[in-house]
Amino acid sequence: MTEDVSAQNTIHLPKGFSFSALASGIKASGRPDLALIEAAEGTCAAALFTKNRLVAAPVEVGRKSLAASRGRVRAVLVNAGNANCATGLAGIKACCQVCQETAKILGVAVLQVVPSSTGIIGVPLPSEKIVANLPALFASRQATEQKFLEFSDAILTTDTRRKIASAKFRVGKNEVSILGVAKGSGMIHPQLATMLVYIMTDIAAKASELKSMLRDTCDESFNCISVDGDTSTNDTVLLLASGQSCTGLKDSSVKKKFRAALNEVAKSLADQVILDGEGMQHVIRLHIEEAKSREEALQIARAIAHSLLVKTAFAGADPNWGRILAAIGRSGISVDPSKVNILISDQIVCRNGTSSPFDAAKAHADLARPECKITVRLRRGRRSIVFTTTDLTAEYVRINADYST
Amino acid sequence: MTEDVSAQNTIHLPKGFSFSALASGIKASGRPDLALIEAAEGTCAAALFTKNRLVAAPVEVGRKSLAASRGRVRAVLVNAGNANCATGLAGIKACCQVCQETAKILGVAVLQVVPSSTGIIGVPLPSEKIVANLPALFASRQATEQKFLEFSDAILTTDTRRKIASAKFRVGKNEVSILGVAKGSGMIHPQLATMLVYIMTDIAAKASELKSMLRDTCDESFNCISVDGDTSTNDTVLLLASGQSCTGLKDSSVKKKFRAALNEVAKSLADQVILDGEGMQHVIRLHIEEAKSREEALQIARAIAHSLLVKTAFAGADPNWGRILAAIGRSGISVDPSKVNILISDQIVCRNGTSSPFDAAKAHADLARPECKITVRLRRGRRSIVFTTTDLTAEYVRINADYST
Repeated sequence: MTEDVSAQNTIHLPKGFSFSALASGIKASGRPDLALIEAAEGTCAAALFTKNRLVAAPVEVGRKSLAASRGRVRAVLVNAGNANCATGLAGIKACCQVCQETAKILGVAVLQVVPSSTGIIGVPLPSEKIVANLPALFASRQATEQKFLEFSDAILTTDTRRKIASAKFRVGKNEVSILGVAKGSGMIHPQLATMLVYIMTDIAAKASELKSMLRDTCDESFNCISVDGDTSTNDTVLLLASGQSCTGLKDSSVKKKFRAALNEVAKSLADQVILDGEGMQHVIRLHIEEAKSREEALQIARAIAHSLLVKTAFAGADPNWGRILAAIGRSGISVDPSKVNILISDQIVCRNGTSSPFDAAKAHADLARPECKITVRLRRGRRSIVFTTTDLTAEYVRINADYST
Repeated sequence: MTEDVSAQNTIHLPKGFSFSALASGIKASGRPDLALIEAAEGTCAAALFTKNRLVAAPVEVGRKSLAASRGRVRAVLVNAGNANCATGLAGIKACCQVCQETAKILGVAVLQVVPSSTGIIGVPLPSEKIVANLPALFASRQATEQKFLEFSDAILTTDTRRKIASAKFRVGKNEVSILGVAKGSGMIHPQLATMLVYIMTDIAAKASELKSMLRDTCDESFNCISVDGDTSTNDTVLLLASGQSCTGLKDSSVKKKFRAALNEVAKSLADQVILDGEGMQHVIRLHIEEAKSREEALQIARAIAHSLLVKTAFAGADPNWGRILAAIGRSGISVDPSKVNILISDQIVCRNGTSSPFDAAKAHADLARPECKITVRLRRGRRSIVFTTTDLTAEYVRINADYST
């Protein structure tokens, strides 16, 4: 359906967006830490934010601005190195000040500026560093691949690589592009707040249309991954549509194409976040099959993905299906364990809740691969999901146990 | 209130119980793995079992027997090295066979035998080894401290030490004793099912009285500890009262004394389980204060205790209060983070949800001690609990990631 989806190779720049980035001195390393997306007039946006009750100031401010502007966005201003979270009223004020200065330079309403922060929690945001650098940031903005890459790098914290994905498709003579960028290593970093995702497109769409599409897409991508089950305080996924491709969503075949392309971009970004999980050795694709509903499949997937015993067994490539069955048993869903089948790769290892003879050496070898599929057949209904998680390694603990304050 | 509670020192043998243990060949190490408690005629019992939906055969059989006999128990037969879990109908049959043989030798009803198993999941129970050794097990039973210690050692699996606690108090001329024994290293062992607790007393009490007391006691002890949040498939806490102290519970002052002594024994055993958590370096006492209800305090305590980011910070003795606040934020309780205070030992580190200046070196030193107190003040109500947990170390991962099948 989608003509071209590339994780890190081809970039399809949607019309109507320019980018820039620079080092403002927030990151102790001196690396670029301030980044801008400017969106053309008429751009509509939808966003999803963290469900944590502890939310960072930029999430609070951005949520309100998007509601008040009815999804009209002209600029996204991101800083890395400081999450502006648990910073009280002073944090809100600092965030508002930065938005106001940005709006002033760009000549737009302050409600049309969406702020984002990622980094250490509980430390006041040095807004003066940001404000002092805004003129230079705006002066250097360009609608180029190079500037987009600079943006992608500036929003990283302890990520080891940039995360971008892109897609395009044709509608008659027009071409629609989607370009996504993310930061995050799966909520596993010391004191650092997590996942920021910006997806830009030049399709024409209302904010309400974007919102429902974004929700569906996130359900299939970012809501189906977990490294450690810790929900960050700054999680943000923002979808921006400039409308400059001169193509709208009215035609149902266009809608279908757009939805497919958006899903592929989001899934690619979600995968890149998982693959950058520190200490991670193996990706596990949990195929939860024959559940009664999507919700119960998710709840069971999360119980498995958050079990320390299961995650450490994955680290050792140990085909320990008893731990998986025990996690299902305590998931809160009234599963009958004696009906459950479990497969490692294509081998059945547990049939009707008890041991089924299997080739343990092959199961170990399958689990030792960079990516392995585990199938859980609940035999309760017809819904299936794929949930992606990682193993838990001693390296993860080492990284996160460092005395860092 | 209680005259003498000793964790590992003095043993107060309640009247009406004898013990024995031997090696039946279930443990690959050849160590003792089969153990018996014989209870005098008239003994009443109450038990609590795992809430996991995947339950081992002995839990299923024992639960039914206790209900059918109305809490009349004459023998407890424990094997270590095999959990008899996820073993299907064959596992139930093996368990019933072992109970029948035990009942036959002792000359009691089969419903009066409570079975327990702990060890590997998904492997058929070698019931022939158990049956063959039952005569020798019964022949060697004695009501002595030495035999009790042999029992305490035989039920261990990868535990590094035995776990016993004892208390006694006077009522007029009579003396009432309580003696408890546990196995478990906090649900953290590879493929091994977890916590077994047997508490014996010579007080006279009905099964229904014991049940309500046991529930209260467990709420304050075993339900307030967590190493990794994985609920085992075999968890059992059994309270046996022989009545042979000639003292009953009718007098409310006796009831109070008994309750206090029972609580202290259970708390001591719960602590010993936590302290034997493999890879564990620090014990953390989470004081959740000023909650609206006990339930919400527990839910918040568990969110903190199960957060990998919090547990790894504890491992590094890192006074990272932001991670604690973020865990509270995603606990599911509608806490207002801007009202929360957090203390490490006696130092306030977070006031009204934001950073409060504190001596970081002292906080680090406090957290580096074998035991540290963290206080979370929610300022929502008047209920408080103390919840005990451990840090998560690289050693834990190493132990649990070993390829063991």
